[in-house]
Amino acid sequence: MKILAIETSNKPLSVAVLEDQNLYAETKINYGMGKDHSKNLMPLIDATLQEAHLTIQEIDRLVVAKGPGSYTGLRIGATTAKTLAYTLDKELSSVSSLEVLAQAYPQTDAILVPVFDARRDNVFAGAYTWQDGKLVNVLADAHISITDLQAALRAFDQEIIFIGQDALNLKEKLSQDFPAHFAEQQFAYPSAYVLGLVGQKRDLEAIDTFVPAYLRLTQAERQWLDQNPQKDNDDDSYVQRV
Amino acid sequence: MKILAIETSNKPLSVAVLEDQNLYAETKINYGMGKDHSKNLMPLIDATLQEAHLTIQEIDRLVVAKGPGSYTGLRIGATTAKTLAYTLDKELSSVSSLEVLAQAYPQTDAILVPVFDARRDNVFAGAYTWQDGKLVNVLADAHISITDLQAALRAFDQEIIFIGQDALNLKEKLSQDFPAHFAEQQFAYPSAYVLGLVGQKRDLEAIDTFVPAYLRLTQAERQWLDQNPQKDNDDDSYVQRV
Repeated sequence: MKILAIETSNKPLSVAVLEDQNLYAETKINYGMGKDHSKNLMPLIDATLQEAHLTIQEIDRLVVAKGPGSYTGLRIGATTAKTLAYTLDKELSSVSSLEVLAQAYPQTDAILVPVFDARRDNVFAGAYTWQDGKLVNVLADAHISITDLQAALRAFDQEIIFIGQDALNLKEKLSQDFPAHFAEQQFAYPSAYVLGLVGQKRDLEAIDTFVPAYLRLTQAERQWLDQNPQKDNDDDSYVQRV
Repeated sequence: MKILAIETSNKPLSVAVLEDQNLYAETKINYGMGKDHSKNLMPLIDATLQEAHLTIQEIDRLVVAKGPGSYTGLRIGATTAKTLAYTLDKELSSVSSLEVLAQAYPQTDAILVPVFDARRDNVFAGAYTWQDGKLVNVLADAHISITDLQAALRAFDQEIIFIGQDALNLKEKLSQDFPAHFAEQQFAYPSAYVLGLVGQKRDLEAIDTFVPAYLRLTQAERQWLDQNPQKDNDDDSYVQRV
């Protein structure tokens, strides 16, 4: 199966073309603060397909990282993947953006905890562990304070390995009164090749209704809730009512 | 320090631009049998620099994988890196192509054994292990039969993890009567980003005299030795005398 995999969840951008287990071409770009995925994604897809000596028509399935992450980044990735899948009649599947970081790490007895910075001592994080040769989610991806995350991870009583550039940036806070280990620098950025390896085995998404997993309210949603305090305050209310 | 790293030792091609620990852009291409690094390398360097928003003039150091590997691939990588370093007055350093595969794997108690297929049940391989946070070479990179490699590795009496696409392709032979483990698929292809991370700490090469480490005779060298049996038969004789 020929796969085009797209990872735009955060500042790094990664696109890969693979067939089954075989990599044809993968590009990772990390613009730092000046990210502009909306401008860069389509040219990067074009370039990566060219390097793979394939056309978009020859692709069987789009695989996209579904979040959590940057609202804009996720929207660009999901919209691009959905549009290509819809217009060219291709399959679409998705993988958690946190899981993509964990899947890049080799099999280990430790608990793998990919982390994205969500500002103000909050993170997006989940916990994954290898069981019988499969990576299993043992703490659901969530928008969570670092303190609450550490409390949840203590319950496992196992070695904890934090993964990702944001984990390295937050090293001091994540290690505070906590026996943390950190995956090396080469695991800091997501790999669309890993995304494609994992996503080719996942169930298909319904292209029409697929949406990324933001896992927190946008600023617009928060403002709406602040201005409408009498309404239900659960995370779905804005989306359901507007 | 801004680095341009070039890995052309075998079928996969990888180019990365990084500054210190930070990745700007990395591309991996794997053409399979139809490799043509001589045609593809310079455009890929151009594209990767563009994605990194840097010019070649802004690069401080070239880092090149120095072999072992394909004779043609190594020559193209070394010549390109030397030419750029010489004409633009940049630093040049190099890392073993086998070590690049081992350095991509996280710290472990196992012995890491990157492998390139050298045909007819021979491989290029070396053995590396993590000691005090540093990756140390414990069996020098060599052109060696699989049987001899297994014998040498048995002496360590430690878990052995073979790394690389060729290792996965040779799984059956490498595992024969030998308790082998294999690094996962995402470690199969060399990463120029890892090459750049390692090579920025290495001593500088003398640009004029730097040559790749082929670790075996070329066909031309073998033929010359076959036709000149009375001459000394050590590996350097062809190069020294012609």
